[in-house]
Amino acid sequence: MGKIPVKTLERLILYRRLLLTQHDGKSTNIFSHQLAKMTGFTSAQIRRDLMVIGYSGSPVRGYIVEELIKSLGEFIDATQKQGVALVGLGHLGRAILSYFQGRRPKLEIAASFDRQCQKVDQVVMGCRCYHIDDLENIIHEKNILVGIIAVPADEAQDVAERLVHGGIRGIVNFAPIKLKLPPEVYVENRDMIMAVEKVAYFARKSLE
Amino acid sequence: MGKIPVKTLERLILYRRLLLTQHDGKSTNIFSHQLAKMTGFTSAQIRRDLMVIGYSGSPVRGYIVEELIKSLGEFIDATQKQGVALVGLGHLGRAILSYFQGRRPKLEIAASFDRQCQKVDQVVMGCRCYHIDDLENIIHEKNILVGIIAVPADEAQDVAERLVHGGIRGIVNFAPIKLKLPPEVYVENRDMIMAVEKVAYFARKSLE
Repeated sequence: MGKIPVKTLERLILYRRLLLTQHDGKSTNIFSHQLAKMTGFTSAQIRRDLMVIGYSGSPVRGYIVEELIKSLGEFIDATQKQGVALVGLGHLGRAILSYFQGRRPKLEIAASFDRQCQKVDQVVMGCRCYHIDDLENIIHEKNILVGIIAVPADEAQDVAERLVHGGIRGIVNFAPIKLKLPPEVYVENRDMIMAVEKVAYFARKSLE
Repeated sequence: MGKIPVKTLERLILYRRLLLTQHDGKSTNIFSHQLAKMTGFTSAQIRRDLMVIGYSGSPVRGYIVEELIKSLGEFIDATQKQGVALVGLGHLGRAILSYFQGRRPKLEIAASFDRQCQKVDQVVMGCRCYHIDDLENIIHEKNILVGIIAVPADEAQDVAERLVHGGIRGIVNFAPIKLKLPPEVYVENRDMIMAVEKVAYFARKSLE
């Protein structure tokens, strides 16, 4: 199966999240128009997306919720559990750990890293913290492909390069800088300041 | 000036951020092809975007960096300082405060809210913390239009409704649920789990 567009994957991830968290649990079936109402996309869009994962509903009974969640998972997740490395255990790192751990069976933060010694060799929210000097070794040893950068801006580029050197192929970057990395590394930037600036603009304009 | 597309605004915000943080500071001028290299967009795209803000460069000398930053600011920011309300002062809320405060002269977190009493009436990173019971009153009193939700998923919908009731017109939502709000409220979702799932998918596929 080839790569799919980022936007399609985002929608598939959203469908699963909504089915897991907001489906009422009473009905065993769901129709594309119900998914449309939950997500704000059109029924036609949803049917096209679900064809991508090879799961088709019935015009009469819709989709079976349990099977749909399973099919979405088989498409989105790895067959084996996939480990993630988290770099930076300040407030943001800890927030990420507490939001993340235990939410997805096939994805876990398998190692965290920090340079402050009092945090190192501790287990924080079920996750062992290593000294940042061991970054490349641990990532390589644990065969981790995904990194989360939660360090200050001035450390982020160095951390990113070390992650890639250790074998990382995808990064979620919370630091407010644009990382310079080889094109084969997939980077998702989550700059909080930019998000707030954007919302502040539209909030203001909505009153003009 | 009317509303512009979200994607255009995102690029304008990115240009300013890069000019503020990654411009070498030595040269006073910059060309669209240099901005193209910094951002990954085409020169033509950048020139079109900067025409939107009404600032045009010269084919010979390019854009004057200082003036460009100023013009971008006049377009993106409010004329007066705009206040933001932050709800939830756990790890995530504190991370947001420390990333955000002092970074943008026209935007500040003017009030934070929490339900835990030991945090209330304290000043955390220069920002006064109020009890969540006072949410609507304080927002209304301070004329705040923008809210950041950094509470657990099961509290987020209630907080969002109270923010809107207090007069909020835009929300950055970090909680992993889809908020149900009136269409005039602009919502930007920043679900961390979804970001990690997406990157994990592309990281894995890059090796297939």
